This record gives sequence, C-alpha cells and structure tokens, in this order.
Amino acid sequence: MKQIHILLSVAALAVSVGGAMTVSAAGADADKSSMIFGGTLPPGYRDWKLISVAHEEGNLNDLRAVLGNDAAINAYREGKLPFPDGAIIARIAWRYVPSEENNKVFGHPQSFVAGPPTNVQFMVKDSQKYASTGGWGFAQFSDGKPDTISVQGCFSCHVPVKDRDFIFTRYSP
Amino acid sequence: MKQIHILLSVAALAVSVGGAMTVSAAGADADKSSMIFGGTLPPGYRDWKLISVAHEEGNLNDLRAVLGNDAAINAYREGKLPFPDGAIIARIAWRYVPSEENNKVFGHPQSFVAGPPTNVQFMVKDSQKYASTGGWGFAQFSDGKPDTISVQGCFSCHVPVKDRDFIFTRYSP
Repeated sequence: MKQIHILLSVAALAVSVGGAMTVSAAGADADKSSMIFGGTLPPGYRDWKLISVAHEEGNLNDLRAVLGNDAAINAYREGKLPFPDGAIIARIAWRYVPSEENNKVFGHPQSFVAGPPTNVQFMVKDSQKYASTGGWGFAQFSDGKPDTISVQGCFSCHVPVKDRDFIFTRYSP
Repeated sequence: MKQIHILLSVAALAVSVGGAMTVSAAGADADKSSMIFGGTLPPGYRDWKLISVAHEEGNLNDLRAVLGNDAAINAYREGKLPFPDGAIIARIAWRYVPSEENNKVFGHPQSFVAGPPTNVQFMVKDSQKYASTGGWGFAQFSDGKPDTISVQGCFSCHVPVKDRDFIFTRYSP
C-alpha cells in the first residue's frame, strides 16, 4: 500500500499528524476503518476507565488520555497478553494550552491543561476480523464523525511493540 | 495559621511542592486532613471517570489525571454548582518522563509519558463538615498512606476560583 500517510505511534495509539490521516488515497483501508463502529462513536467510551496519560509535542501539541473498556482494563491489570477479543482502547486528546489561571497561583509559568479536543482514536481487538493488522482494528473520529484513515498505516507504526500485542501505552497505577 | 507549607493550586487541586506538605507544623489541620477517609484511600477511586488531564513543569514535573466519583462527574456534566455533598475529586499524578520508545517511531523527540506515580490528592464535598474550607475536605496519599498536609493551606490556594466552587479543573469533553 502506498505510504503517503504519516502515521505515528504515540504514547498509546497511532495518531495523525497535521491532518495527514484524512488523505483520500487511503482508499479501501480507510473505508474499512471507518466502518469499525458503523461510523459512530462506541457508546459510553468517555466513561471508560483510565489507562494512562501522555503529552505529545510538535505538530500534535496535545495532552492525551488513554481509556479502556472493561475487557481492556482487566487485561491490563491482570497483565494478560494478547488482549482478548472485544477489548477496546480509546485515545482522547486535547490541545496543549498554558493555564494563566493556574500560573497566577503558582507565581510562575508551569501549568498546562487540556484545551479544545482534537480527535479520538480507537483500537478494537477482533483476532479474526482484523487478522491482517495484528488482530486490531483502528478508527478515528473528529467532532463525532469518522475520519478517513489508513488502517495499514496505523498498524505499521505499532509493529515495534508487537511483543506487547501492538499496544504502546502501559497501565499507570 | 503558620504559612510554612508551600501549597500551590494546580490544574485541579492543591498539590505539595518538594514534599513541603509533609511538614509536621501543619498540626491540627493535618490531622483533620488525614482523617477524611479514615486514613485509607477511598475504595475504587482508580476506576472513577476522567474529568481532565494536565502537565505541571518545575518541581512538580508531572503528568496528571483528574477523576471524579459519580456525584462529581454528574455535576460537571450538568454544569451544576456548587458540587453536591458526597462529590469527590481525585488527582492522580506520575513523573513526567520522555518515551524513547515512542520517539523512535516518531523519528524525533516529542513524546512524554507517565512514569512512576507521585501522590494522589482528593477533595471531598461536605458542606457541613468542611464549612470552614468552602465545604471541601482535602487529603493526600503517597504509596497508599495518608500524608500530613495543611487543609487550610490547600484551601487558601483554591480561593481564587471560589466562583467555580473552589475547583480549578474544567471538564474536558
């Protein structure tokens, strides 16, 4: 597949940089990706339990939280790999913005908080359905709508952590 | 009360800087604080829903997540102030560490993840019991054990956001 997309694995999941994930050339893979949840956000994902947090500099310039549904969280906490079918991991992200309000209290600049949301990404485990990408399906949503992404592009960045079932993020106690 | 502690409000909650919260001179307030949950962590707090995330530079040097129990989350989502009695807000934090693993995939340094945990702080709403501190009780735990802190010290840093019921952190969708 043509690697014109720029997909980078991050603290948790593959992410787009500079909107490169939305290139239409992603083609068939893109269609497959946006179909993971029937084109809609998985219900209740914002209520899922926290796996960890991270900050990305550069073009991403975000603060992010990685959440997991019960199947994912249980696997993390029990240290079980591979993740079971049905496990879903969500990466939420927001613009990285300084907090003048907090800095005033601190007496100097040091505080950065979550600004406007950027996008939400998901990895869903189905070892049969997504056998060609390590058993993981990938999806991304912006403003509640599915983005056109390249599933193979997402997957290729996750290959370096194959021994952790292709998942970058570690559970933070 | 003697202001020898250094308590600074942050993205969410009052936090200690350089361990200054553990000074014994905090006295009676400190005892009161550590008694909020009978000296033990509130059960299940790590499963609470996510309110937001933040990064603090300087001595704190952490990545943090702010979680809320159902009473707190519901109040946030409904935009209801003041928070109801029973609302509890938890601030978890971890050392801010670069991720060489992630940076390799990105091709340049940009990724920061959660390292070892630092401490966990709580604000619990009880308008009667904690009437002298805006209706909020404050507590901090390190390695699962209550730290000696100054509740008045915590509270004084939260006064600038009195109009948000003394809570710095905003809900991130």
